[in-house]
Amino acid sequence: MTGWLEPRPWGWNEILYDALYEDLGPGDLSASCLNPDSVVEWSIEAQAEGVLCGCGIALEAMAPSDSAGEECMVEALLGDGDTVRRGDEVLHGTNLAREVLAAERTALNFLMQLSGVSTLTSQFVEKVKDLGVDIVDTRKTVPGLRSLQKYAVRCGGGRNHRMGLYDGIMVKDNHIRACGSIREAVERARRHAGHMTKIEVECESEGQVAEAVAAGADIVMLDNMDPFTMADIAKKYRDDVVLEASGGVTLETVRGVATTGVHAVSVGALTHSAPALSFHLEIR
Amino acid sequence: MTGWLEPRPWGWNEILYDALYEDLGPGDLSASCLNPDSVVEWSIEAQAEGVLCGCGIALEAMAPSDSAGEECMVEALLGDGDTVRRGDEVLHGTNLAREVLAAERTALNFLMQLSGVSTLTSQFVEKVKDLGVDIVDTRKTVPGLRSLQKYAVRCGGGRNHRMGLYDGIMVKDNHIRACGSIREAVERARRHAGHMTKIEVECESEGQVAEAVAAGADIVMLDNMDPFTMADIAKKYRDDVVLEASGGVTLETVRGVATTGVHAVSVGALTHSAPALSFHLEIR
Amino acid sequence: MTGWLEPRPWGWNEILYDALYEDLGPGDLSASCLNPDSVVEWSIEAQAEGVLCGCGIALEAMAPSDSAGEECMVEALLGDGDTVRRGDEVLHGTNLAREVLAAERTALNFLMQLSGVSTLTSQFVEKVKDLGVDIVDTRKTVPGLRSLQKYAVRCGGGRNHRMGLYDGIMVKDNHIRACGSIREAVERARRHAGHMTKIEVECESEGQVAEAVAAGADIVMLDNMDPFTMADIAKKYRDDVVLEASGGVTLETVRGVATTGVHAVSVGALTHSAPALSFHLEIR
Amino acid sequence: MTGWLEPRPWGWNEILYDALYEDLGPGDLSASCLNPDSVVEWSIEAQAEGVLCGCGIALEAMAPSDSAGEECMVEALLGDGDTVRRGDEVLHGTNLAREVLAAERTALNFLMQLSGVSTLTSQFVEKVKDLGVDIVDTRKTVPGLRSLQKYAVRCGGGRNHRMGLYDGIMVKDNHIRACGSIREAVERARRHAGHMTKIEVECESEGQVAEAVAAGADIVMLDNMDPFTMADIAKKYRDDVVLEASGGVTLETVRGVATTGVHAVSVGALTHSAPALSFHLEIR
Amino acid sequence: MTGWLEPRPWGWNEILYDALYEDLGPGDLSASCLNPDSVVEWSIEAQAEGVLCGCGIALEAMAPSDSAGEECMVEALLGDGDTVRRGDEVLHGTNLAREVLAAERTALNFLMQLSGVSTLTSQFVEKVKDLGVDIVDTRKTVPGLRSLQKYAVRCGGGRNHRMGLYDGIMVKDNHIRACGSIREAVERARRHAGHMTKIEVECESEGQVAEAVAAGADIVMLDNMDPFTMADIAKKYRDDVVLEASGGVTLETVRGVATTGVHAVSVGALTHSAPALSFHLEIR
Amino acid sequence: MTGWLEPRPWGWNEILYDALYEDLGPGDLSASCLNPDSVVEWSIEAQAEGVLCGCGIALEAMAPSDSAGEECMVEALLGDGDTVRRGDEVLHGTNLAREVLAAERTALNFLMQLSGVSTLTSQFVEKVKDLGVDIVDTRKTVPGLRSLQKYAVRCGGGRNHRMGLYDGIMVKDNHIRACGSIREAVERARRHAGHMTKIEVECESEGQVAEAVAAGADIVMLDNMDPFTMADIAKKYRDDVVLEASGGVTLETVRGVATTGVHAVSVGALTHSAPALSFHLEIR
Repeated sequence: MTGWLEPRPWGWNEILYDALYEDLGPGDLSASCLNPDSVVEWSIEAQAEGVLCGCGIALEAMAPSDSAGEECMVEALLGDGDTVRRGDEVLHGTNLAREVLAAERTALNFLMQLSGVSTLTSQFVEKVKDLGVDIVDTRKTVPGLRSLQKYAVRCGGGRNHRMGLYDGIMVKDNHIRACGSIREAVERARRHAGHMTKIEVECESEGQVAEAVAAGADIVMLDNMDPFTMADIAKKYRDDVVLEASGGVTLETVRGVATTGVHAVSVGALTHSAPALSFHLEIR
Repeated sequence: MTGWLEPRPWGWNEILYDALYEDLGPGDLSASCLNPDSVVEWSIEAQAEGVLCGCGIALEAMAPSDSAGEECMVEALLGDGDTVRRGDEVLHGTNLAREVLAAERTALNFLMQLSGVSTLTSQFVEKVKDLGVDIVDTRKTVPGLRSLQKYAVRCGGGRNHRMGLYDGIMVKDNHIRACGSIREAVERARRHAGHMTKIEVECESEGQVAEAVAAGADIVMLDNMDPFTMADIAKKYRDDVVLEASGGVTLETVRGVATTGVHAVSVGALTHSAPALSFHLEIR
Repeated sequence: MTGWLEPRPWGWNEILYDALYEDLGPGDLSASCLNPDSVVEWSIEAQAEGVLCGCGIALEAMAPSDSAGEECMVEALLGDGDTVRRGDEVLHGTNLAREVLAAERTALNFLMQLSGVSTLTSQFVEKVKDLGVDIVDTRKTVPGLRSLQKYAVRCGGGRNHRMGLYDGIMVKDNHIRACGSIREAVERARRHAGHMTKIEVECESEGQVAEAVAAGADIVMLDNMDPFTMADIAKKYRDDVVLEASGGVTLETVRGVATTGVHAVSVGALTHSAPALSFHLEIR
Repeated sequence: MTGWLEPRPWGWNEILYDALYEDLGPGDLSASCLNPDSVVEWSIEAQAEGVLCGCGIALEAMAPSDSAGEECMVEALLGDGDTVRRGDEVLHGTNLAREVLAAERTALNFLMQLSGVSTLTSQFVEKVKDLGVDIVDTRKTVPGLRSLQKYAVRCGGGRNHRMGLYDGIMVKDNHIRACGSIREAVERARRHAGHMTKIEVECESEGQVAEAVAAGADIVMLDNMDPFTMADIAKKYRDDVVLEASGGVTLETVRGVATTGVHAVSVGALTHSAPALSFHLEIR
Repeated sequence: MTGWLEPRPWGWNEILYDALYEDLGPGDLSASCLNPDSVVEWSIEAQAEGVLCGCGIALEAMAPSDSAGEECMVEALLGDGDTVRRGDEVLHGTNLAREVLAAERTALNFLMQLSGVSTLTSQFVEKVKDLGVDIVDTRKTVPGLRSLQKYAVRCGGGRNHRMGLYDGIMVKDNHIRACGSIREAVERARRHAGHMTKIEVECESEGQVAEAVAAGADIVMLDNMDPFTMADIAKKYRDDVVLEASGGVTLETVRGVATTGVHAVSVGALTHSAPALSFHLEIR
Repeated sequence: MTGWLEPRPWGWNEILYDALYEDLGPGDLSASCLNPDSVVEWSIEAQAEGVLCGCGIALEAMAPSDSAGEECMVEALLGDGDTVRRGDEVLHGTNLAREVLAAERTALNFLMQLSGVSTLTSQFVEKVKDLGVDIVDTRKTVPGLRSLQKYAVRCGGGRNHRMGLYDGIMVKDNHIRACGSIREAVERARRHAGHMTKIEVECESEGQVAEAVAAGADIVMLDNMDPFTMADIAKKYRDDVVLEASGGVTLETVRGVATTGVHAVSVGALTHSAPALSFHLEIR
């Protein structure tokens, strides 16, 4: 088992390297208390219930270096997207004690942060699953971890909004003002973007939604609207355009929003405020 | 005002650059909706109450490039460590619309994440302030953001534990087992470490504390002990050694722990589970 | 004038730095023949007719360093996307001779390569302009220059296909075979992709096109089909799906392909085989 | 077979990594259509006749990762510098489908670009082979690919001019003007350069050639001269100095230039305008 | 044998890579004189007496690449911290001749520089060993090699001062002046630093030492004091504070300084002026 | 005054950045003792006699950041290659105290190391100046500092040997053995190298020198020969080839070697064992 859920993100090895560097700097001073050749067996266990993410990256962090002996190994017992309960063993291995202790904290930090995101996502998904509404993320991510956090959202059953400013167009109030109208903004966007690029328009009123649909927007974002307005809009437009509700949605409010008839609900908290899920490394 | 609280962290400019890259990738597709020369006034406001962190880095993110005109500028109205209320203006400036919209999300993401940490820290600090007990962080940080998160802890009134494995020694159970005894572990650590390095011993019982103090530990960590045991230990040893309480401390339990007589309480949640503080960029 | 056409690409400054390093390595040995303080006026002229690209990056390459005096400057007289004839002045400036000669070749190399792409693109565009058919690029780009080459395609009047494997889905024969059918492949892609992601299916027969349209593909690629087949398909499906013709299209054949009724023609040669456009730096 | 012709270039692994990153960004979205464990056999074939370059780098791009099984492998059937015809198999292998499709385009792009350069070079070389005249490259290279393009020139039978401003001195008109005379320029260059550094002087007239030879230049470049002048100069000076002809030389004109008696002809087009050679990856 | 003395430094692989790049640039031109498949046996020997450092890094530099055959290997016969005499074999191996000659100079340069530092350190240590006084390094290191040089000091029997400005506080005259008094400076430092951070005060007189001890400094540096003053201070304060003598100490003067009763003597020359120890690579 | 001697090296700004990072890591802890706005005047003085190198890089290290006020500045009073005596002021400036103390050690370390190299070089040059013999460096450099050390050699009046394996060919015993003869080795090298590349042959006997000259070597290295042999060889060959003496040359032996009639003497110690020249930063 590789630990990853496909499609896996790419470029994570540099993020892992930087994280290891951050913890190890010019070296692990406490290694002087260890026998340089002593080999230990270790395992990482979940300490709370949730949905896993970070197994693939933790597997790589804990992998024995070339200078470890042939008996050294690492194995994933569960993979990203799997459900865990307190006490479940996630990864285990055999390695030089000095390598285990050097990588331990970094491996756990990835597991904790990413499983925090996938677990919170899965809680939102659970609330609206039966309604066929998607939970999607935003660009409100932790600096440096966007591709991994968006992967964690997928592991938790959510779906990704655009990755950044480069893989989709969101026409916002400032763009509309600069162009004079929604129609003109969408047309300008369409003229410069490729035929593989979707265009979403952020709307604050039903009037704007009508204008956006007429202009040929692929998606309309209903920004901070009350449920009644959203329901009205959904009734009229949900067959013509993808409707995304957005704005301070919580675990308490998400079902109410989802029942208005929108196709997707975007939730910034998935990536900006997910509490960590606890994991623990044990040496036998 | 530079926005920074001294001593500021170092090397953050690369973290900022990577974060901008993460959002912009090969370019901002929505820029086609903007007049390339149009200049706007913008301001960033807090949307909740808390303690600021990230002003210096947001200031740099929002700074006009060389190709912006002379009327373009950016200014910090408040600085890291300052208290904010909903609606307080933190930064404002004048710049090309296309530069403002390209940097907006990145600047806000830093402010949200770092102010989340400083705000949560300040809440812990507030609980124990009158007791003269320090709130300190751990190595349970978000990969890639450790130096900035530890700076945020300082902005919130907390103090830093070691930055990583390289600037302080923590003797843990595995080190003790490898050496045979706490005495031997501390001696080995002392022999290889420089005279500027402090040594902390993680203890799980009063017996271990006694051994660590006798071995000359600079700091003793009381790991997941109950308050009564901690109070007993504090009574005996608080004049001989720095005592640090640790283990799942929350805003609800921190005062109880602090009243046992320890010198410091370390809290992993400061950096692994702080919810973001909301900020908003407005264009006039 | 900044030299750039908006939306400009991002991250080009690192590509420029690497290119300068490639030429300068540990230093310009011929600088010993120059007076270190001597200042010269220079200009860059086109040596052939075409469409400009690379002005913004050349402007940055030729910009005086901080150690140059106040009389030093650089200016773009034309911008990316502009048409040039032999002898047209594109950029000029005043700077230390040693800085001009150190950056000259690198600035010219960017202008030559990128203007080569925009010029070739404009020739394809010219052929089909009146038909309302788009000329689009592919992923057959020069390693390391993709974002700049795709920008050059836009400067030449073309439009961009997906930037890479990450901002759009192309279902190819291998994906179809792995999934058993086009329907299953598109459904699997849709299930994992976000709502901002478009899905294109590469088809080799009319039967496949029908299947792809039924499966809900956003775009259908007609791969190496003869014009008659394409015309048949276009007649039936051009209102239901975006049709992209692909496969060894040349300046000679593009008009024939475009008249079949497809919406877009993709041309690998735009980025893999565009001959350079000549430029020359003159010192007065 | 390693695929490389020795001496191979160095540092290409970073160029390969950047190229993969450029295509994969935060991940291959189409991987969701593949079974993560399915293994395929693939081969890369030439689609046109020419001289190979890029086998070594493509071999590395297509190499199975550590997480692939033991049956996975990659092999080069031909090597850089070998002649190919349409249909020749160049590399083949067995690997996870998701790894093959993630690296395919990048591997092909290197092969196409570099074999384009080696093929064009070999065509120039073919024209003048019997005359004992060398075909050499210039600094008019594609930004970021210089060391690989210069390697491709060697694979095509050409020879390299200086790699950059750091490994040889070319005294040009601006250096001459700054020093007052060719004699003074060559002397200044000689005084500061090491004894391993050669000095070439760019000349526009026979008078300048005489002056350069007298000053002790190692090589004289005949810049944009007509064949008669070159022949005159060659008669007089070819035993005293290395003569290099330069200036807009094409496949049509190169033989005429070579018969004037010069030792080498430098051709910018080898690296700035070589059309790609086509390759194709097939999965069985 | 790994060649390393634990705790080894971290991040050295990037320093090694940069050093290889520095020597190899775009490739080893002399490789054309070698048969690309020829395999040789090599060994590295010391050419002078001293204490080894750099074995681990040289081992990595000389390790066969993946494209070398199975008979290729590398082995360390001695390790960092070991004593060598002229002629002692340190490392040996079997590898492709072209790989051996490409890495040879880089491997030797690391061994020469680092063993130079460890050998000089061991000479200082030898002089004061019986007195129980530590020899410590400073921040006067060679740019880019600090972590490796400080590791070399440990290999030579010395101990490390702080690694940089980030892992310990030195209160200097300018800090004292800015704060008004030593007391105030130490208090301010204590207030902002973590509980794992030690504070040293640089003192120029006995009065300052008294003030520093009273303020609670962990270490006092006696800066450029004469031996009599140091002896007086040591008599009074050596039980209350760690005393470090500093200032132009040489192999001739170190014993005199050490007998004053200080705990440690810091020596800048260990890292800024250590002559290289000679090593030689022989191919059989 | 820029501080640099032309031609200056390139790419040093990254070396400077890394060196600053090495010292500052996550931040300067002692900055808490400074008023963040306090501005000071500083100067750097030489503490010993020698030849300067490192002024340009120190100037950049000490340059005020953008956040410093307008009164802040930095100025070089002397430049690289200038002679200094103890007490000479080299650079001075006005800047924020916290910026001065953060960069001080790094600036001084560059000046100390590089001026050490230029000073030692100038001592060798002084010994042989009247003989018209060049002092040249080798590849025995400090890892990571080669381009700067080779620049320092030029500042001290020496000349550079090849920069690395990429800008000149040295045929050594292993190359000769692989090819069968010196003639064959030189021919093979000539065949693959460009016409701008010089070839040197390392010789251990007069017979080898004869063979190398006959084979057309540009330079012959007399490796560890006794002065009488060198004188004999010089008498016969010094008009046909450049002769370079090499092998453990010291300040004591260099004149003897130089009087044998060779053109150049290469000295590894210039870069592997130069003791630092002392500098000091004073704040007024």
